[in-house]
Amino acid sequence: MKQPADLLVTNAGQLCTVAGHGGRPAAGPAQGEAGVVERGAVAAYQGKVVAAGPEAEVLASVEPEPDAVRIDAAGRLVTPGLVDAHTHLCFAGWRAEEFGLRIRGAAYLDILKAGGGILQTVRATRAASEDELVAGLIERLEEILLLGTTTVEIKSGYGLALGAEVKQLQAVRRAAAAAVQDVVPTFLGAHAVPPEFQGRGREYAMMVAQAMVPAIASAGLAEYVDVFCEDGVFGLEETRRILEAARRFGLGVKVHADEVVHLGGARLAAELEAVSADHLVVTPPEDWEALRAAGTIAVLLPATSFFLMKEKHAPARGLIEAGVPVALATDYNPGTQPGGSLPLVMSIACLTLRMTPAETLVAVTLNAAHAIGRGERVGSLEPGKEADLVVWNCPTLDHLPYRMGVRLADTVVKRGRVVVRGGRRVTDSGGVTG
Amino acid sequence: MKQPADLLVTNAGQLCTVAGHGGRPAAGPAQGEAGVVERGAVAAYQGKVVAAGPEAEVLASVEPEPDAVRIDAAGRLVTPGLVDAHTHLCFAGWRAEEFGLRIRGAAYLDILKAGGGILQTVRATRAASEDELVAGLIERLEEILLLGTTTVEIKSGYGLALGAEVKQLQAVRRAAAAAVQDVVPTFLGAHAVPPEFQGRGREYAMMVAQAMVPAIASAGLAEYVDVFCEDGVFGLEETRRILEAARRFGLGVKVHADEVVHLGGARLAAELEAVSADHLVVTPPEDWEALRAAGTIAVLLPATSFFLMKEKHAPARGLIEAGVPVALATDYNPGTQPGGSLPLVMSIACLTLRMTPAETLVAVTLNAAHAIGRGERVGSLEPGKEADLVVWNCPTLDHLPYRMGVRLADTVVKRGRVVVRGGRRVTDSGGVTG
Repeated sequence: MKQPADLLVTNAGQLCTVAGHGGRPAAGPAQGEAGVVERGAVAAYQGKVVAAGPEAEVLASVEPEPDAVRIDAAGRLVTPGLVDAHTHLCFAGWRAEEFGLRIRGAAYLDILKAGGGILQTVRATRAASEDELVAGLIERLEEILLLGTTTVEIKSGYGLALGAEVKQLQAVRRAAAAAVQDVVPTFLGAHAVPPEFQGRGREYAMMVAQAMVPAIASAGLAEYVDVFCEDGVFGLEETRRILEAARRFGLGVKVHADEVVHLGGARLAAELEAVSADHLVVTPPEDWEALRAAGTIAVLLPATSFFLMKEKHAPARGLIEAGVPVALATDYNPGTQPGGSLPLVMSIACLTLRMTPAETLVAVTLNAAHAIGRGERVGSLEPGKEADLVVWNCPTLDHLPYRMGVRLADTVVKRGRVVVRGGRRVTDSGGVTG
Repeated sequence: MKQPADLLVTNAGQLCTVAGHGGRPAAGPAQGEAGVVERGAVAAYQGKVVAAGPEAEVLASVEPEPDAVRIDAAGRLVTPGLVDAHTHLCFAGWRAEEFGLRIRGAAYLDILKAGGGILQTVRATRAASEDELVAGLIERLEEILLLGTTTVEIKSGYGLALGAEVKQLQAVRRAAAAAVQDVVPTFLGAHAVPPEFQGRGREYAMMVAQAMVPAIASAGLAEYVDVFCEDGVFGLEETRRILEAARRFGLGVKVHADEVVHLGGARLAAELEAVSADHLVVTPPEDWEALRAAGTIAVLLPATSFFLMKEKHAPARGLIEAGVPVALATDYNPGTQPGGSLPLVMSIACLTLRMTPAETLVAVTLNAAHAIGRGERVGSLEPGKEADLVVWNCPTLDHLPYRMGVRLADTVVKRGRVVVRGGRRVTDSGGVTG
């Protein structure tokens, strides 16, 4: 009995299904298993994958409908759609002049004193209308769609007051409704101490825990709560209070942990069974086992470290060898990573974290999906999952990080629908042949 | 008396003319002077700039023809077209699998033993037909045109035998005739010791000097001769013999110098009045004055160092402060830099060489033009120079390196003709308004 198919991708020179991990994030040596199939094919029906694997097997198992969309991959690479598990995409205003100051050697504190840094983005985002935020979000979601990103997490955190945080999350909801991508909203009210609470960070944190988290949860505006746990920002105890409140209200939790100083944020993330602990630049080996045991995903952001000219990089090899599932994300934000290319992040991860090309692919697909609670729906090409995939203008997986900075996404399919073709946005749902 | 204009670019939020260096490469503190004009405009006639500067002044000085092409930059950044002064664009075959091996820790010697490395490209390039090389060149020239590159140097060096080198340079000539860009051909017969001369590098070098250089010169196939002067490749004496032969035949000279070991290639370049010395990763301070005194341009390739995971970077700040004009180039080649984005090179130069955004712009325009003998024709927007310019999707120069990896080129003009619009190739020469 053959299954019907309304989308058929054939003649993939190399197909990376990222399947075979039993629905779980890939960890340990398995992180390097991208499910590589030579001469592969993918079939989908009503937006879901029905078969993915060797072309002959796929063709034998499905019966394409007469008007099925057929894509000839022409010997090129096919992967799952990419998943960006950590972004701050909802903001107003760039900070290009701060980049120039930083290059000239200005210390971050000097930049803050000059009115720059995160508080500049807070001012601009507070001053922006919800409509302006929606427009910026849609523009950036379109930008990253052309780069192959089909699922994306977006944090608030530039409002730092209930009204402005709600405005951000409502903008995310509206942009998500208009966008092609699946969007996962995260409340990051504890991203920085707002200017009006200067010197009273603890008081602000308590307000986040006691007033903002309940309000965000009851409005259904976020799936996760995240905290920037860092020396001089929010300490361990404040982080715990906020995340425990999140859990009481049924929200998942995430932590910006150990980016600069080893406060123990990763260990706290594990204790609270956070879905992810992010950054982890200075997380020492003695904290890795806790992450592994808790099933907490390590979301590494190597483009940010590079952009900040840090010499220290997250211990990706150690984490992988310790059995911690590693994801990679862009951290797209106007201060420390003003771009959203996951393929570029893959390149930087290979070069600075010594991850292999296959490990980086798993990190921006299956593991990234698990890092935002979407591992059952996206991140790999296997029956029952959503038919999100990319045909790349290159023959093999190694090319993706190798051709650093080159735009290779040719065709992007989201839930079985062709949304990018020839590197350009398709606005109708017309069929494609050849 | 107003001058006629057939192209008018108005409303540049920021115009960087890179003018004001008196026709010479920018050196010392002047390397940071990008000729920034707020609310600028550029007018051109018959492919040449007739005015560039504050919009009111430009508009007062020209009389646009009725059918002049008008471009409203809409508050965005306008710069000269970019110049890539060091590429190996004429090759066959990628080396993506070698990238994977390298990440896994394979030493370069192991890769060579496994049949990889430069000799893999030599095999593939020798096996390719001239037509195949032309097709690859045209594809890559189109790729970099969309990134804002309007002038480009292309080296041979994967033939390593007279016939195969001539095939490469003939392919370059044919591609140049078809391409939008100005192309400057360089003969790099001494790029590596060919397999059939293994252990007899000196003999090969003498053949390059005595037989190949004269043949290439008399066929008019190259403007420059370049040598890979490096420990284990070609020594100082071999380099000198080849470059002295080049000078006798009226060709300009360049040197791949001091990339890994300090052999003294930069000093030799200065002695031979080379137009450029390239790489310079390990050139010590005592060699800088010779470069300055000779007027030899330092062409730095920071994307290559990053791609090779080197911890040591070229001494850009020292060179600039010593008064050596610094250019930046991609080094586009299949082994150590398989991409051609000069804006990405600008980002990497800011982050790893601590060059300022303005210094990087001068380095990929005026100084790069001088590094390939085109400083009198392109590289800045001033009367009499060719009207090569780019309108970028950002408001200021700082944005170009800041938005790392984001494709920002919107409109590209070559010799007064719009060749890219909205980031897409324009194949006809139709007018553009607004």
